[in-house]
Amino acid sequence: MPPTRDGLIVGVVGATGMVGRELLALLERRKFPVRELRPFSSGRTAASVIFHGRRISAPAVNAAALSSCDLAFLVSSDEVARTLAPRLAESGVWTIDDSAAFRMDPRVPLVIPEVNPGALRRDARLIAGPNCTMTGLAVAASRLHREIGVRAVRVASYQAVSGAGRSALEELLSQSRALAKTRPDPDGRAPRLPAGIGRALPRAIAFNAVPQVGRIGKDGCSGEENKVRDELRRVLSAPRLPVSATAVRVPTIRGHALAAWLTLARPLSRARALAVLRRTPGLSVQDGDEYPTPRSAGGTDIVGAARVRIGANPREIALWIVSDNLLKGAALNSTQIAEELLRRGWLPSR
Amino acid sequence: MPPTRDGLIVGVVGATGMVGRELLALLERRKFPVRELRPFSSGRTAASVIFHGRRISAPAVNAAALSSCDLAFLVSSDEVARTLAPRLAESGVWTIDDSAAFRMDPRVPLVIPEVNPGALRRDARLIAGPNCTMTGLAVAASRLHREIGVRAVRVASYQAVSGAGRSALEELLSQSRALAKTRPDPDGRAPRLPAGIGRALPRAIAFNAVPQVGRIGKDGCSGEENKVRDELRRVLSAPRLPVSATAVRVPTIRGHALAAWLTLARPLSRARALAVLRRTPGLSVQDGDEYPTPRSAGGTDIVGAARVRIGANPREIALWIVSDNLLKGAALNSTQIAEELLRRGWLPSR
Repeated sequence: MPPTRDGLIVGVVGATGMVGRELLALLERRKFPVRELRPFSSGRTAASVIFHGRRISAPAVNAAALSSCDLAFLVSSDEVARTLAPRLAESGVWTIDDSAAFRMDPRVPLVIPEVNPGALRRDARLIAGPNCTMTGLAVAASRLHREIGVRAVRVASYQAVSGAGRSALEELLSQSRALAKTRPDPDGRAPRLPAGIGRALPRAIAFNAVPQVGRIGKDGCSGEENKVRDELRRVLSAPRLPVSATAVRVPTIRGHALAAWLTLARPLSRARALAVLRRTPGLSVQDGDEYPTPRSAGGTDIVGAARVRIGANPREIALWIVSDNLLKGAALNSTQIAEELLRRGWLPSR
Repeated sequence: MPPTRDGLIVGVVGATGMVGRELLALLERRKFPVRELRPFSSGRTAASVIFHGRRISAPAVNAAALSSCDLAFLVSSDEVARTLAPRLAESGVWTIDDSAAFRMDPRVPLVIPEVNPGALRRDARLIAGPNCTMTGLAVAASRLHREIGVRAVRVASYQAVSGAGRSALEELLSQSRALAKTRPDPDGRAPRLPAGIGRALPRAIAFNAVPQVGRIGKDGCSGEENKVRDELRRVLSAPRLPVSATAVRVPTIRGHALAAWLTLARPLSRARALAVLRRTPGLSVQDGDEYPTPRSAGGTDIVGAARVRIGANPREIALWIVSDNLLKGAALNSTQIAEELLRRGWLPSR
């Protein structure tokens, strides 16, 4: 659906970033009713985007132009969100923020539409979307939690480099090109990287696995690990749920993968666990030697689960989860929130 | 030490493979007393190796030439080990087998010298070395198990491609070269791989994470996951220890990494856990934002642990472990077993 007279005025802050481009493509593909698109680049430099085949300039953020939108997507930094989001919401703009700035604010619903649509409130015009690593886990755990009860979660992540932004992705690709040129020793000694490449990530990422996403605190946990714990508790309405995460960046391009263990309130057979997972909204389940990988599920809307097994005790299941960090972990979830607001009739044009 | 009159006659089956080359380099570097080296290629084709600067031909396996060795290292397939190892041991040759063929045979000690040297017996001339994924975990858990008691283990692996052999490594490198040539989309869509490359591993491995190592059984567990469980139980003398593993291949060259959770018999502070780990034989411990990665620990003798945190409950610690799959996971462990036999005086020349 091209821009329509009946549609909404939609602002997008961060429209030129990786998530922003995905968001515009989703609004097109899912025929979201946009009367006018107002894209803004995340900050310093103006740029442009393509929407329904038309090039639209994306200037630096303009609060006045945003405050007359019906709906604003913020797919930008925490700092930009902190400045803009409360003012927009107060001025009546439905504001869906994908940053971490408001996710733990009790006044702001943190929403995955398949998991906790009930958290949306007509009077809460600022809505947060969750951390990209936690999203697939929450989708996979949601029905098990509702039907059986999840009592503890352990999760190790295999996080794609695009989750750290475009400069990190460039780092992976330039390092990989440099390494692919130097023919590696057939006995598997890693070729040396040219010095001085690598700024966006804490270690060289090509042919590596780096167990640090975010800053590591005094308790030994990284920022990402804390987000996974705190946001999962919030989305599942389980404020004291024990959650232990180990967040690791791996040299994949798109698609965060997770090895998770869910301890349940009671024992569950593998067959029954598979049955509950197959009934879980938004989850695509495989078994045996069929499973999603970052290469197969990256770039798709799917949250995929597979490798379902009994875990360390009969009350526990182990599983593998993959979802695209830029889509379900970010742009798709934000779009789905907007679609849910539309469905409820809370999103009229003003 | 060059070959010496006082040394041993040492056979190596699989000398031309990836682990075999590492083993020869270790015997040189660690000055293992070799009077005569008898290297054999793993099978079909003859080849040669370099040892102490001399080229030595490595013919197909010759059982007669092996049975007059003092010591034989088998770094070859399960099939070759099944045929050769029992006969060699019966004929009096100390035989250290790195394959999976005898690891669960109750008559054959399964030994990591830092962990369970007491399993070595003077009358058990066939000795097995453990699975490369389990080795670092066993080293890291050993002293915690002895001092506090390990009651459950959950582990997700980040396994290097060299662990699947040279053809798998060639697959990773050729795929990476192909992908590095096609300039990927700046928005992170993975470039398409040329069709038909990829035989040694179940999925394309470049820029991917593949949750399958070995065959997946009816209970949903893979061969590698079963090995980790069974062999860890055996090495820790904990036959009913609950162990749940998720084994994942990642596009790293050398160095298996693990995200592990160890549930203990009683609560332990992070500081005390670090103290016990720092006293653990064979383990190198880091903290804060210092940690080993496959690129830093691959190619070294180190078993590194870091990112130590309280896990999902106060009786649990989470940690990150890296060790080289070809060294501590294979050739180094076999060499250390031979050194322990020497130290005990069980390895005289015949």
